[in-house]
Amino acid sequence: MPRLRLALAQSNPIVGDFAGNSDKIVAAAREAWDAGADLLLTGEMALSGYPIEDLAAQPSFLRAARAAVDALAVRLAAEGLGDLVVVVGHPDGPFEPRLLGTSNAPTAIAQNCASVIQGGAIRARYAKHHLPNYSVFDEYRVFIPGDELLVLRMKGVDVAVIICEDLWRDGGPVGRVLDADAGLLLVLNASPYERDKDEVRLPLVTRRAVETDTIVAYVNLVGGQDDLVFDGDSVVVDGQGTILGRAPQFREHLLVVDVDPAPAEADHEAPPAVLRVEVDARGDEAGDLARDIAELPDDREQLWNALVLGLRDYVEKNGFPSVVLGVSGGIDSSVCATIAADAIGADRVYGISMPSRYSSEGSVDDAADLAQRLGIHYSVEPIGDIVAVIENQLGLTGVPAENVQARVRGLLWMAESNRNGHLALTNGNKTEVSVGYSTIYGDTAGGFAPIKDVPKTLVWELARWRNEYAVARGETPPIPQNSITKPPSAELRPDQTDQDTLPPYDLLDEILERYVSRRLGREDIIAEGYERVTVEYVAKLVDRAEWKRRQGAIGPKVSGMAFGRDRRLPITSRPAG
Amino acid sequence: MPRLRLALAQSNPIVGDFAGNSDKIVAAAREAWDAGADLLLTGEMALSGYPIEDLAAQPSFLRAARAAVDALAVRLAAEGLGDLVVVVGHPDGPFEPRLLGTSNAPTAIAQNCASVIQGGAIRARYAKHHLPNYSVFDEYRVFIPGDELLVLRMKGVDVAVIICEDLWRDGGPVGRVLDADAGLLLVLNASPYERDKDEVRLPLVTRRAVETDTIVAYVNLVGGQDDLVFDGDSVVVDGQGTILGRAPQFREHLLVVDVDPAPAEADHEAPPAVLRVEVDARGDEAGDLARDIAELPDDREQLWNALVLGLRDYVEKNGFPSVVLGVSGGIDSSVCATIAADAIGADRVYGISMPSRYSSEGSVDDAADLAQRLGIHYSVEPIGDIVAVIENQLGLTGVPAENVQARVRGLLWMAESNRNGHLALTNGNKTEVSVGYSTIYGDTAGGFAPIKDVPKTLVWELARWRNEYAVARGETPPIPQNSITKPPSAELRPDQTDQDTLPPYDLLDEILERYVSRRLGREDIIAEGYERVTVEYVAKLVDRAEWKRRQGAIGPKVSGMAFGRDRRLPITSRPAG
Repeated sequence: MPRLRLALAQSNPIVGDFAGNSDKIVAAAREAWDAGADLLLTGEMALSGYPIEDLAAQPSFLRAARAAVDALAVRLAAEGLGDLVVVVGHPDGPFEPRLLGTSNAPTAIAQNCASVIQGGAIRARYAKHHLPNYSVFDEYRVFIPGDELLVLRMKGVDVAVIICEDLWRDGGPVGRVLDADAGLLLVLNASPYERDKDEVRLPLVTRRAVETDTIVAYVNLVGGQDDLVFDGDSVVVDGQGTILGRAPQFREHLLVVDVDPAPAEADHEAPPAVLRVEVDARGDEAGDLARDIAELPDDREQLWNALVLGLRDYVEKNGFPSVVLGVSGGIDSSVCATIAADAIGADRVYGISMPSRYSSEGSVDDAADLAQRLGIHYSVEPIGDIVAVIENQLGLTGVPAENVQARVRGLLWMAESNRNGHLALTNGNKTEVSVGYSTIYGDTAGGFAPIKDVPKTLVWELARWRNEYAVARGETPPIPQNSITKPPSAELRPDQTDQDTLPPYDLLDEILERYVSRRLGREDIIAEGYERVTVEYVAKLVDRAEWKRRQGAIGPKVSGMAFGRDRRLPITSRPAG
Repeated sequence: MPRLRLALAQSNPIVGDFAGNSDKIVAAAREAWDAGADLLLTGEMALSGYPIEDLAAQPSFLRAARAAVDALAVRLAAEGLGDLVVVVGHPDGPFEPRLLGTSNAPTAIAQNCASVIQGGAIRARYAKHHLPNYSVFDEYRVFIPGDELLVLRMKGVDVAVIICEDLWRDGGPVGRVLDADAGLLLVLNASPYERDKDEVRLPLVTRRAVETDTIVAYVNLVGGQDDLVFDGDSVVVDGQGTILGRAPQFREHLLVVDVDPAPAEADHEAPPAVLRVEVDARGDEAGDLARDIAELPDDREQLWNALVLGLRDYVEKNGFPSVVLGVSGGIDSSVCATIAADAIGADRVYGISMPSRYSSEGSVDDAADLAQRLGIHYSVEPIGDIVAVIENQLGLTGVPAENVQARVRGLLWMAESNRNGHLALTNGNKTEVSVGYSTIYGDTAGGFAPIKDVPKTLVWELARWRNEYAVARGETPPIPQNSITKPPSAELRPDQTDQDTLPPYDLLDEILERYVSRRLGREDIIAEGYERVTVEYVAKLVDRAEWKRRQGAIGPKVSGMAFGRDRRLPITSRPAG
């Protein structure tokens, strides 16, 4: 059987940064060539970054993308890499609009493509067939689907090329790989991290490999992009379901793997709608068998790594020098500060303690203790005088006065952000945001919410894990034990605790998982055995939180991690069911 | 020729309010029956409201929708309206998911349907074929397309039923109306207002009527729904292109029109994939020829009406008692206050003047003058003492100090919102929001932005128009002349005017129209003849404003009018082109 050496470039592009992304691809091509590879495969849209959203509707952006792929071909040849076959993902266009709609607005003018480069030229191009338009994906909105399959013949092997969702669809291009007699299937992907996704993705890749009796080379992007994190975890699986190679999660990596695909029958005819292109193989022989198989860490470490990378890339890709956040001594701000220190280094993290007359001595001590353990910058800015002048002038009491405390804190860290260029972090967790246990323009003020997709019970679990992880390495546990064990409190009035107004967090998170994430109705949840009075109370909190946002702010829409998008709902509505 | 009396129910539903929306349809059915109509036609999804976004992914919501349409059929018969043919729009489901995607999340489980009710039962159901997924539409995300055409035979006439986008697609169901030999085409729509859309929509309806030689009855929803406004403007056009009936814009209306469609050939066979259903016609004869043709007002009056209805429905459908806004004496807040008074009545509008040491005497006088002309509630809350304590404690100067002034104002009206339940309005116009001439969590704080889609030059034009409109009616012009004529200023430092840092507004708005709304690249705009230095400066302001939002707030995402959605962009990106 012919042997092919594959190199999978698991890269971390910046959306729209064609020059920087091209540099990464050229560097990967050089490393691949030096390692004896025949072919380099990038992730989906590695040249432009992903997702590009409505940049795909901007003709000048598409012209820039096309110029970048042409320039990449020329540059690879000029740098002595012309014999390497490079399969690169990028958007292409502008094309004639797919359709004109009711508002007479043009619809999609772009395609989601993979181009095959060799000898300084584009040899062939594949356009993605299946455009996902659910959860976090909006591709059908901005792309025109392709309808042709691409097969490269290389060293006598037929090599098919498809993109991401194409692999998942029964009856999609994968079915036609069999007809096309391909021995190797290349898949370019931009597949975001979700908890437990490795329990879905690898089995799917394996199933496809086995059912088509084809070697599947699956390359994914890596890196944070707004509220998505791509985890990498690129993999090569043979037709018996054996893993031949696997890249580590959450970092850039060039995965070099040797494969021995079945050769094509020389007289096999290409089926209709299949473009078959002959590409040259390099003349010299590769050395020893290349194998590279990473192990995945456990679930909590994966999640922590996702949170860290998501924040790091939001900071670095946007060019922020540093971050600022309020540190209260509570669990949420302690975990956010630790994520920030792990992401960009403690010397770029600024914590501000902003005690009021309701803040306990212990809270201020816990905040100072956290800052010292992490080594972050720390300052104390009491809010009493400012709150007093506002309360007195307006004659405020009760909840409106509690909101003023939170808003004065938000105002203080936004002032620090404006003065020093810090990115402002907001510490709300998913539970708190869902039930509205927060103040609009107060504690919700900020540009990035590191734990907005982490339920409260999981915040505690992560805190304990992070401390154990430190201990196992002989390091100081970053999070004060007291912040983990004390009863959570907003400290906006005397002796307040979260459980004064909220059900126990373990029960609350179970109900929120059903009501918010899985979109079950109240009756559906009660039918699962939860108490009616609790379900109705939680549902009322969620609906009320949405109503309060309508009244004062549509949001708090901050960037942050979204492992799946829970709800995209009309604002003005009276939902039934 | 057979005569049919059609009744088109141009109704204003609330999303998810099945009970209230059913009441409206029953009331329209009674009025139609009493007026001698054979058939009542509602707008698209009139039973559920539109758009329902991801409520379409919630099985309990779909079950409630199906129960509501079944109950509607029973109720119509029980109330003596069983002989009337009622064609009603609603979502249907849950169905098996269209597909399972890469994240293993189910995709669409709903269809966008029209059901034909007669004799207490659902006689037939049509599912929309073409699901728009561009601009403000996301239907392909949440609906499964239909593939069958529906034809009712009634008084010997073949009556085809389609939904909205189906009408716009060349090669769509409209083409098959000819094959189906229909004499009458019923179209259920949810078509939002855009400036000058009447120059597109009516010609399209007319063209379809003429090219199929069919009478087209086109009914649209009316009302505000979050950042959309449906304008109504339902119309009936015959095969010669003559308008037989037209409903007024921006209010509910039952349009009753007689039509004389060509009868079907008795032996004409239904083409494949066409469901033909026989429905009964009422026995008695209708009276005199029914005709009802409204005139459209001019462009500025239409726009004003759209802004007023958009705010009114956001307030009323969400159940807010009143609104609060800052009134500075400037043009933006004056126009917003006037829209609010027109929308919900002056006695539900609370204006607060919040002068600082930089506010001119004239500004405070203009704000008081506006409040008196409108008759709204008015109070003065100086911010000097609050700003002083913050500036002193933090040692702030320059732009961070200017931002504090704006944020203290936002804090004050949010406190009033919290205390009294007012909806908070934010006064930013489209120009200001685009170039970031505003403070995050300051003047941008609020739940609804009445003029967020109105460029500054158009704000002035509307102000002048509204005053002329008042004068023509012998009323007091609401907006002080001084607010219209004085140079605009943020008044955050001495002698500041907008033109210190921004190009002249007429030039700025022209460039923003191209860079933001039409998605042209810098070079494209320069090629149109605009000065390079100005284009690059404006583009830099827009990009910088987006960057500042990344740093401190992803937003300010507030609800408000969106006549088309300009950009849906990645946050983290370096856009080329």
